[in-house]
Amino acid sequence: MNLPSFFEEDRAAVDAALDRLMPAENVNPASIHRAMRYSVQAGGKRVRPILCIESARMFSADITPVLPVACSLEFIHTYSLIHDDLPALDNDDLRRGKPTCHKQFGEATAILAGDALLTLAFETLAKAPIDAARRVAILAEVAKSAGTVNGMVGGQVADLEAEGRAIAPAELEYIHRSKTAALIRASVVVGAVAGGADPSSTGRLRVFGETIGWAFQVVDDILDVEETSASLGKTAGKDAAQKKATYPALHGMEASRKFARELESRAMAELGPFGARASRLQELAELIVHRRA
Amino acid sequence: MNLPSFFEEDRAAVDAALDRLMPAENVNPASIHRAMRYSVQAGGKRVRPILCIESARMFSADITPVLPVACSLEFIHTYSLIHDDLPALDNDDLRRGKPTCHKQFGEATAILAGDALLTLAFETLAKAPIDAARRVAILAEVAKSAGTVNGMVGGQVADLEAEGRAIAPAELEYIHRSKTAALIRASVVVGAVAGGADPSSTGRLRVFGETIGWAFQVVDDILDVEETSASLGKTAGKDAAQKKATYPALHGMEASRKFARELESRAMAELGPFGARASRLQELAELIVHRRA
Repeated sequence: MNLPSFFEEDRAAVDAALDRLMPAENVNPASIHRAMRYSVQAGGKRVRPILCIESARMFSADITPVLPVACSLEFIHTYSLIHDDLPALDNDDLRRGKPTCHKQFGEATAILAGDALLTLAFETLAKAPIDAARRVAILAEVAKSAGTVNGMVGGQVADLEAEGRAIAPAELEYIHRSKTAALIRASVVVGAVAGGADPSSTGRLRVFGETIGWAFQVVDDILDVEETSASLGKTAGKDAAQKKATYPALHGMEASRKFARELESRAMAELGPFGARASRLQELAELIVHRRA
Repeated sequence: MNLPSFFEEDRAAVDAALDRLMPAENVNPASIHRAMRYSVQAGGKRVRPILCIESARMFSADITPVLPVACSLEFIHTYSLIHDDLPALDNDDLRRGKPTCHKQFGEATAILAGDALLTLAFETLAKAPIDAARRVAILAEVAKSAGTVNGMVGGQVADLEAEGRAIAPAELEYIHRSKTAALIRASVVVGAVAGGADPSSTGRLRVFGETIGWAFQVVDDILDVEETSASLGKTAGKDAAQKKATYPALHGMEASRKFARELESRAMAELGPFGARASRLQELAELIVHRRA
């Protein structure tokens, strides 16, 4: 798949900002900074930061102040991967094509590196060069999306508890929307807020973000069935092996592909009123639904 | 030891606010909220929230808006205990006289409950009823004190890495000041900021908080040698068993007691210029140094 050039430019800007925002490897205690950098710089797609930046760009030409906000989302995403991969949780050895954090640095360091990235995310947000009223609104939005009530940790708990048993469609929807869609929704929303969007536009983008975030997880479930570990950079076929609750397991592959496209259409509909201004978000939504890894 | 009545009143106010700020046990997913509540409500001394409240009270009669700030410090402290007690870290079975979170709920839930409390701390701070400029200053202060660079997680990493080997006094000082003093210092500082203190008073209280926080850890090391598990509510004698770097191990018991009293004097000296206004902080400092658990 050819990535649009703005995607690569955003990704380069995010990677440079992530590097600036993390303590250097030689800062004491070095081991934790090495582990944090290892996991953050393992080469993710940067979907959340790029959604944040392109959402902001619809309302503001200067996205420099938005970069720390965008990076905080990647710190939170990376912390969640480090902790999810731990032996007590999903027990995975491979992530982004490399050994997982605990395989590389040991469990204690991995637990603390996750804690440190979550903490750094909020320190970064607290210091972002955005006026204080909007900054606290952004902080509250991000924290809620990462929390237990319809947020990322809540979804992760429900996901673990659903392993190995039959679940209802509503329960799977809760898992997908909390575990994955909440933080992606927040990425789009806080980008808009950082860019200075009016409440009505922010509300529309909230629905867009929630919907495309949900699609992201449905596609993730599909790819776990279809693709190889090499192409995914993480262990493929793991959902079925661990008897995870997934969209394909519950509804079959054909219905899953159809539902992902339906969510894509719903998300696109929210962008309609923005016209050409939303063309980059449209491209990102297409990339999310039609990606192969 | 007789606790002053304001201590018990503050503690009751903190306990009530903690209860209000955490999702109820029946909120989905219930298991994580049960685990969070179990650990937060296991009956800590609430030293950090009470220091925060009494620091604020020096500058403001109404401490109601400070309560969420005070509670966020207890959420962070509790998350750090849950993660420190995990098998991959200190591997402890007993905390505050009860089974540790992972003994009670399993490792996966304990890891996620810690993550959730850290996240809830920042959500609580982001929504505190304090003007936005002061709120972001408070957030930045708390996040930094909990992080890796001279902060709590950095101290925990250094503590783990110091196990079983000889360390220099400067290294022990780094561990104590980062692991314990940083968050206690932040508790005093953000109380002052929330109460509306001038920068000069805040600066003086910063030194007070740092010093009494350092004393707290030296006394903790002493009590681990002197007291029983029953009186401490956690496994006693563990530092020596795990070959932890402690003040008594490095300098002996007599020098440790002397140093704790010296830190107490230094802390008290910072309070001098405040006169009678600082009498409660004085009492708290005495309690910290002369406590038996």
